[in-house]
Amino acid sequence: MNRLVLAAGLIFLAVVTAMAAQTVEQWGRYELALNGPTNGNPFVDVEFSARFWQGQSVREVRGFYDGDGIYRARFLPEQPGEWHYRTVSSSPELNGQTGNFNVTASSARNHGPVRVANTYHFAYADGTPYHELGTTCYVWHLQNEALQEQTLKTLAAAPFNKLRFCVFPKRYQWNTNEPILYPFAGNPATTNWEFARFNPLYFQHLEQRIADLQALGIEADVILFHPYDGGHWGFDRMPADADDRYLHYVVARLAAYRNVWWSLANEWDFMKEKKESDFVHFGEIVSRDDPYHHLLSIHNGSLLFNHALPWITHASIQNGSAVEDPGRAELYRDVYRKPVVYDEVKYEGDIESRWGQLSAEELVFRFWNSTVAGTYAGHGETYKSDDQVLWWSKGGVFKGQSPARLAFLKQVLDDAPAGGIEPTERWQNPQIGGRAPDYYLVYLGKQTPTSWEFQLPKPPQGKGQPPAHGLKFRVEVLDTWNRTVTPVDGVFTLKKKDNYYYGDQGGRSVPLPGKPYIAIRIKRAVGD
Amino acid sequence: MNRLVLAAGLIFLAVVTAMAAQTVEQWGRYELALNGPTNGNPFVDVEFSARFWQGQSVREVRGFYDGDGIYRARFLPEQPGEWHYRTVSSSPELNGQTGNFNVTASSARNHGPVRVANTYHFAYADGTPYHELGTTCYVWHLQNEALQEQTLKTLAAAPFNKLRFCVFPKRYQWNTNEPILYPFAGNPATTNWEFARFNPLYFQHLEQRIADLQALGIEADVILFHPYDGGHWGFDRMPADADDRYLHYVVARLAAYRNVWWSLANEWDFMKEKKESDFVHFGEIVSRDDPYHHLLSIHNGSLLFNHALPWITHASIQNGSAVEDPGRAELYRDVYRKPVVYDEVKYEGDIESRWGQLSAEELVFRFWNSTVAGTYAGHGETYKSDDQVLWWSKGGVFKGQSPARLAFLKQVLDDAPAGGIEPTERWQNPQIGGRAPDYYLVYLGKQTPTSWEFQLPKPPQGKGQPPAHGLKFRVEVLDTWNRTVTPVDGVFTLKKKDNYYYGDQGGRSVPLPGKPYIAIRIKRAVGD
Repeated sequence: MNRLVLAAGLIFLAVVTAMAAQTVEQWGRYELALNGPTNGNPFVDVEFSARFWQGQSVREVRGFYDGDGIYRARFLPEQPGEWHYRTVSSSPELNGQTGNFNVTASSARNHGPVRVANTYHFAYADGTPYHELGTTCYVWHLQNEALQEQTLKTLAAAPFNKLRFCVFPKRYQWNTNEPILYPFAGNPATTNWEFARFNPLYFQHLEQRIADLQALGIEADVILFHPYDGGHWGFDRMPADADDRYLHYVVARLAAYRNVWWSLANEWDFMKEKKESDFVHFGEIVSRDDPYHHLLSIHNGSLLFNHALPWITHASIQNGSAVEDPGRAELYRDVYRKPVVYDEVKYEGDIESRWGQLSAEELVFRFWNSTVAGTYAGHGETYKSDDQVLWWSKGGVFKGQSPARLAFLKQVLDDAPAGGIEPTERWQNPQIGGRAPDYYLVYLGKQTPTSWEFQLPKPPQGKGQPPAHGLKFRVEVLDTWNRTVTPVDGVFTLKKKDNYYYGDQGGRSVPLPGKPYIAIRIKRAVGD
Repeated sequence: MNRLVLAAGLIFLAVVTAMAAQTVEQWGRYELALNGPTNGNPFVDVEFSARFWQGQSVREVRGFYDGDGIYRARFLPEQPGEWHYRTVSSSPELNGQTGNFNVTASSARNHGPVRVANTYHFAYADGTPYHELGTTCYVWHLQNEALQEQTLKTLAAAPFNKLRFCVFPKRYQWNTNEPILYPFAGNPATTNWEFARFNPLYFQHLEQRIADLQALGIEADVILFHPYDGGHWGFDRMPADADDRYLHYVVARLAAYRNVWWSLANEWDFMKEKKESDFVHFGEIVSRDDPYHHLLSIHNGSLLFNHALPWITHASIQNGSAVEDPGRAELYRDVYRKPVVYDEVKYEGDIESRWGQLSAEELVFRFWNSTVAGTYAGHGETYKSDDQVLWWSKGGVFKGQSPARLAFLKQVLDDAPAGGIEPTERWQNPQIGGRAPDYYLVYLGKQTPTSWEFQLPKPPQGKGQPPAHGLKFRVEVLDTWNRTVTPVDGVFTLKKKDNYYYGDQGGRSVPLPGKPYIAIRIKRAVGD
């Protein structure tokens, strides 16, 4: 296995070295590869960086040693046109190299990195909305090659556009096998690591998998630290200087991949060898080192991190309880004024732990609650398996029923207004999301009514808003479990009901099937 | 009216001037009163402060001009024994005065200022638990004398131990009368104010009312700014230097009252003439000026303030929706790691606005949800009235049904463990509060079951904790609306049920009356 990966790594090397001479597209990856000193420890002895500029736009990029005497500096060009560079190094061979290259317009499927948009939502850098729908396979890339390929195949056919996974290997129930590679030089048998000597093959492989995800249109939510080591390898308890060096190295390597997100840690508070202030320090390093300011957050166990800190771009939260009710889910939005991503809401599965035994119906219910609350939930799957391959940890194939329903949700999200779904009247009717007065999504959850009185919160009034009275709407009934969209006959026309609500002029209700998991989609009928 | 108040103010002056020569008790109020210059504008021309010390303990206290040539510096002694002082002033008459005085032990009903305790709760400085139960009468002290006295009489018989009210007068529906006094020199008819000349009578009267509340054991949650002026008097849109001068003055006057809390604003985000950063600035002034660090927060309209800021001692939140469910109510605790006080959860009443038309049952329900979630709710009452006296704005008498039920809640709180009620398993069973394994309070809200299977979350294990198996409990059924406590026969003894729960060894359930608003109180039966 290691030999195969080594071969892949070398091919990859050859490709990227050649790339430096080529033209790249906007939000592509430009890479300088230079030969430099191999004596001593190049990982720490040699300073190497590059400055890239175009007019007043300047990016300072930290380089890194990639083994075999090769030093690299990677650049993610955010503007098309001609760019210039100049290297800076403590080694004369690597210092003062200059050049320029051309950045062309991005190709059709390249929309750039994902950014925060409209305070609570996301969009690609080119403005294309990004409707976050994530799943989790913590160490899929450290399993055998066949399993990795199977995971990619599964993802290619799935609705998910973000994958959470760890840089470091994981040791936990259902995941006690050793990884295919190790991040540091050293002896796996004695776990005697040289923390100052990275294993370039490990990171080349990680990069290949990030590139594979990018080709599938999937964002890589890279988890930088996690507690599921427990001292077995000791990557959860490295000395402070090793932690910092690791962060500098991984950011130097990965920041030029447009689909990278940074997750400082999974269950940060379960890492008993670290203090909360350590993670503030780590976040400051990543934020400072990353010239492109990729999305950056940190995921909690029991203790929420302070997502109000300025370098945190969105709140990554574990709390299954919060998405049992849209009225809970939306509360964190007000606190942080940032996108809220419930990266862990418990998993579909049947293991003994209650965090891994949700029914598919319950997991999908939680996604819909989070959706109408203007937040985003995360998928994971923990069905017991003879081969010990649980999706949540190792990838493989889906055994559950939720992904097909989340594909339906994804269609609904892609059809919704570009700005993202907001709670329309958050402290009164949290089950109604939308973009008033053009689009409303009412989620009835576990209720099973046979009709719903057509009624909307008073639409916004004033400058730029149409008069509420007489506004016309078309209504569809969505069975979110059975994946059906049933249009309701006719048009509903607004008439004031009281100070807070508008109903239909004809007093009509929407007929419903008396089943759970129904949503009502209400779109303004501008042409009617 | 003004003449009466003036007389009261003069008597008060005489008393406090005399006080300087006397011994005071711990957490009492020591006051220096010195004659100084009256020319120019003493409010701004004269710097006057005092240093109080006892050994290494030093307090720098800002003085203030109180009219009639009298300058005061007030001190709240936090330790008994001998204290020394020395004045500092730009005026030679006021500079370099020295002295000492003796501070005796506090009297029985004086427990000192309220402080944060156990992260999420409160206690008086002497360690006595303080179970916050607040109400709101925004400008009760600016109504006619008879009404003020009636309000105090009502409060004396009520369960509330905190009152929220404004320094500045209020102009709003049901409150369009002018106040009995104005805070600045000037002409009320033309609202031409001299913002650099305070009206000492206004503040002397305010202080008298704070002292009256102190005598009743009620904390004064003093609201420093609010939007219910709308430019009528213009106290909501003073120039920046006037805002700052006002804050310095009011903190200099009030900080020595042990029952003062600071609320920077009511509905801060509705003050459209101020920016969010203005309130950060205001908070920093109050925090810096107040030598005793009284509790300090800020109350929102629609936009939550960043309660993670270090000078904010507790989160003062308006959100009625959050207390409709304990699973919502507890979420803010994790975010702020500070006490969460829902100072506005909508009011009991019958006005047209939906923030003022809760039934008494609904308001009491919200208090109980907040209680088992380890947070605190606030009372207010808005019943329409021919005399335009609504408790929430002017005080007077209660017309509603909730205060009697909140008195029952207060008894339950006072009987609960001193550390405060915590969610015992917050992301699984938010309806269970308590202090495991000694005390549990299960609130069933609007559910109407006829029995409840005795079941507790797995009690904490390990050092200092008794073995869970065999722990014995006594159970009581509390009808929170009808105010009854019904003991359940016998003792319940724990037996492991599964990885997460313990039931009764005999498999018993608790019989319930099939009514809403039932709580189950479970206390460890140590002697049984």
